[in-house]
Amino acid sequence: MKSDKYEKIMDLARRRGYLWSSFEIYGGIAGFVDYGPLGTMLKNNIINIWREYYVVREEFYEIDSPTITPYEVLKASGHIDNFTDPIVECKKCLDSFRADHIIEECVSVNIEGKSLKELEDLIRKYNIRCPKCGGELGEVKRYNLMFVTSIGPGGKRTGYMRPETAQGIFIQFRRLAGFFRNKLPFGVAQIGRAYRNEISPRQGVIRLREFNQAEGEFFVHPKEKTHKKFKEVEDEIVPLLPADRQMDKSIDPNEKIIRITIGEAVRKGIVRHEAIGYFIVLTKKFLMDIGIDVEKLRFRQHLPDEMAHYAIDCWDAEIYTERFGWIECVGIADRTDYDLRAHMNHSGVDLRIFVEYDEPREVETYEIELNYREVGRIFKRDLKLVEERLKEMDIEEMERMVKELKEKGRYILKVDKDGEVKEFEILEDYVKIKKVVKKIQGEKILPHVIEPSYGIDRILYCLLEHSYREEKDRVYLDLKPKVAPIKAGVFPLVNRDGMPEIAMSIKDALRREGIVAQYDDRGAIGRRYMRMDEIGTPFCITVDGQTLEDGTVTVRYRNTREQERVKIEEVVGYIKSRLNDL
Amino acid sequence: MKSDKYEKIMDLARRRGYLWSSFEIYGGIAGFVDYGPLGTMLKNNIINIWREYYVVREEFYEIDSPTITPYEVLKASGHIDNFTDPIVECKKCLDSFRADHIIEECVSVNIEGKSLKELEDLIRKYNIRCPKCGGELGEVKRYNLMFVTSIGPGGKRTGYMRPETAQGIFIQFRRLAGFFRNKLPFGVAQIGRAYRNEISPRQGVIRLREFNQAEGEFFVHPKEKTHKKFKEVEDEIVPLLPADRQMDKSIDPNEKIIRITIGEAVRKGIVRHEAIGYFIVLTKKFLMDIGIDVEKLRFRQHLPDEMAHYAIDCWDAEIYTERFGWIECVGIADRTDYDLRAHMNHSGVDLRIFVEYDEPREVETYEIELNYREVGRIFKRDLKLVEERLKEMDIEEMERMVKELKEKGRYILKVDKDGEVKEFEILEDYVKIKKVVKKIQGEKILPHVIEPSYGIDRILYCLLEHSYREEKDRVYLDLKPKVAPIKAGVFPLVNRDGMPEIAMSIKDALRREGIVAQYDDRGAIGRRYMRMDEIGTPFCITVDGQTLEDGTVTVRYRNTREQERVKIEEVVGYIKSRLNDL
Repeated sequence: MKSDKYEKIMDLARRRGYLWSSFEIYGGIAGFVDYGPLGTMLKNNIINIWREYYVVREEFYEIDSPTITPYEVLKASGHIDNFTDPIVECKKCLDSFRADHIIEECVSVNIEGKSLKELEDLIRKYNIRCPKCGGELGEVKRYNLMFVTSIGPGGKRTGYMRPETAQGIFIQFRRLAGFFRNKLPFGVAQIGRAYRNEISPRQGVIRLREFNQAEGEFFVHPKEKTHKKFKEVEDEIVPLLPADRQMDKSIDPNEKIIRITIGEAVRKGIVRHEAIGYFIVLTKKFLMDIGIDVEKLRFRQHLPDEMAHYAIDCWDAEIYTERFGWIECVGIADRTDYDLRAHMNHSGVDLRIFVEYDEPREVETYEIELNYREVGRIFKRDLKLVEERLKEMDIEEMERMVKELKEKGRYILKVDKDGEVKEFEILEDYVKIKKVVKKIQGEKILPHVIEPSYGIDRILYCLLEHSYREEKDRVYLDLKPKVAPIKAGVFPLVNRDGMPEIAMSIKDALRREGIVAQYDDRGAIGRRYMRMDEIGTPFCITVDGQTLEDGTVTVRYRNTREQERVKIEEVVGYIKSRLNDL
Repeated sequence: MKSDKYEKIMDLARRRGYLWSSFEIYGGIAGFVDYGPLGTMLKNNIINIWREYYVVREEFYEIDSPTITPYEVLKASGHIDNFTDPIVECKKCLDSFRADHIIEECVSVNIEGKSLKELEDLIRKYNIRCPKCGGELGEVKRYNLMFVTSIGPGGKRTGYMRPETAQGIFIQFRRLAGFFRNKLPFGVAQIGRAYRNEISPRQGVIRLREFNQAEGEFFVHPKEKTHKKFKEVEDEIVPLLPADRQMDKSIDPNEKIIRITIGEAVRKGIVRHEAIGYFIVLTKKFLMDIGIDVEKLRFRQHLPDEMAHYAIDCWDAEIYTERFGWIECVGIADRTDYDLRAHMNHSGVDLRIFVEYDEPREVETYEIELNYREVGRIFKRDLKLVEERLKEMDIEEMERMVKELKEKGRYILKVDKDGEVKEFEILEDYVKIKKVVKKIQGEKILPHVIEPSYGIDRILYCLLEHSYREEKDRVYLDLKPKVAPIKAGVFPLVNRDGMPEIAMSIKDALRREGIVAQYDDRGAIGRRYMRMDEIGTPFCITVDGQTLEDGTVTVRYRNTREQERVKIEEVVGYIKSRLNDL
């Protein structure tokens, strides 16, 4: 018997069809995993419950955008420049390694936030060599973690496999705001593949090059990071590990987690605002609901120097595993308007939305009119476009325009026409400018976004580990019925006397009701139960001698192994109701 | 009003959140589409119904493998060599075009099956020029349609975005056979992204570079291409367009489709075997069930020269659309053992499964034993591995080995150890060979596979088109309740007297039951109905003055616009039952 729990679970997962090495017959490649028949059902069940939480109940609307993303999007989002790891190549064997990892493995120094130069200095100072061949290591470079490809023929257009599903949401913000009729707050979700071309992943399903995300983006007014349902959850106790307690060396490492209500955490400023607080609670509820052990769950705040380039605050839901310790499974981040602003600036398309004031306000502003004698022959057929754009111009931009006309004598007016951006040069004598006082109804603002981002693969692994039970004579997965892949095994005790036909018809009746049942007539009945226990099937139905006499079958519950006799015609209803109860 | 139906539907889809241009704010890229909030729900609903058909009822088991696929897999599958289009570049503007398409657009010649050289000759002969700038066209080349990328740092390992989900299934065949305990037939499914780096896609959602497939692979004994449920469907009438009728010029083009039962079609040899026949019927049922107009559906057999490189027979479910005519939405192909054999040969891993005979048979064969005096010092620690491999060797290979030893004096023995292939050279004097007669229980065979492959995006577009209804005063989508994104709109007639609160609580009650309902309190009630009609919402619930008096609300059905009054406390149950009935 293997002693490491990870090995045991991965062995079970491989044998029984939960998780398989990808491309195994070709030698396999690290960082990829196949979900086998049971793994796929488990994953789908987890995703469906996530949808029930976010899409059905929280009223997030889901979108689905391409995984291939053009350069422009990821340049704007900062991923071209910031989504990198430090890499170092061995001069002898030419293999590549993560510079920070091999330093950490050799010497115990804090490398968080170190520059490339500093990492290289550390390698020289401690004479760190290639971990594979002992050769000398080269220069430390920046390595971008995106898979790169080319769209269309001739390599004319560079694309990347998306590093997160979130960008697909941000770049559709204008359409989304329209869908929600420009009314904040609103939530948008995306579930799907994301990619990270790791240098040399060595942690199995925990660090994948291709993985499954479920992300929510909750857009709010920058000054209203509240949540209308916060009242409903404020008494929920959550296990928090704030940044300051992590850094405070006077606190015993075992006492760093505090357990308080989310209401208190927000009131005390431990959690920055209600919106983050609400999603911390929702995440806790979701994880517990699918079967994660709440004793092995904590919310850890990012330290200032580990934050992603787009976030000002982030809390990770971390789940405890025996081999890897606490692993990050969900990130709940306040991304501010970082992404929307970046896309607005790069695309030239206005992504702000108009928010009405409670009371109209008086402000000093300008009136800008075209000097028609000048501009008619210049803008020709685009005159109307320019005219309308000037009419819609907001106060901020008017001020900018007046200033630039004064200083440089020209202003570049960007006009967005169905996503296509046209530029027009406006010279001083094209326009007449008047100072006026106006009553305004509201202003255009760029929303902030609070993002709960779930790593489905890691959550699934943790769920397998937390469900794994060993008893003297068996191993079983204590999966809740709602996540278990197979809901019921159906067996004939022996393969004669019409038992197979009855068992088969029960299996068919369950399937007709949408309940995934599996027929099995091979091997001793005890072994069949054990097979079902090992994959986490909550119920087994057996057709036996007594069935032929009184029309009842046995129903056995996985955890207790207790059996009851149920009439054949009632067994579908019986299973249905117990699936819902447990 | 736009007159083209495609334009009308795409306009509705864009305005209301079904389908959006991808990367729109950056100018967009052809061949990509975003599913907006409603489109994603519609797509998820279609996929869930597909799962009900294939996974729940047909007992296909679903797997989920990476979209990034290493070179070796696609070399073996033939995609590196055969998944290509002929391309030609303009010498002047350097833009690229599909050579066959631009020839077809200029002259009416049959170009099916023409070589690169022949295509180029046609371009020269008819002096075909660049369709964009009129420049001279260059050489016709082969262009591979896969998106290429690189796995890990340094470009050491080439990968591609998968061209079909099917390969992920074939390369896991050994694991899958184990899961099904080596018992044929069995079905495996995969749903997910597939990619095709088109040269210059110009058909909107019909020809995408990134698309969604749902594929089933039904593995059968090569001599038993039957289906155990064929009896249940044999009286189903199907619209067939066989290859010979397509080619027979004596048949009137409008009379080419024949409508006969699938039983007769198989008996007459029009459809090659039951397995293809069964999936033709299942496909028809599925498409009708989601709402495709059966009058606009036909099954067209591929002509011999249009078949994919892996298939010996293929029937496409084609759906009629106004702009594009008949478009291929599902392919039902007999891929034989093409893929499994290719992967077995390339990987060296035995993918055959053992099938028992009804009666044991006597055959002439060999007994091969190691000459231990010779081999001990040669194989050393691998001796046991070689020994076991020889013991398991089947008759076919023994014959091959004996022949090669006789002719060449050596045989390369490939040993598969957990997916890793080791090679051992066997020389004549390493082994002792004896002729024997043996009773054998069965044989190893390589299964054939029948593949129903669904293009979800095209099906979704066709469904929108077939559901589109215009009346004098409104447009509506006649979507079945089970596919409609929003099941119910909930409105307060006016925003006072407590009506909003009641409407909101009804919306919440519906959502708690998993029914996606949308609250709307903006604009005149008639406009709110029209908004819901246009997106295909089957029911609208309105809280009005009478609600305050007698506790009833109106429920309006989209198609008839008829309204009924239902008690508030019964409205959730009422909607539920009508959703199931329709």
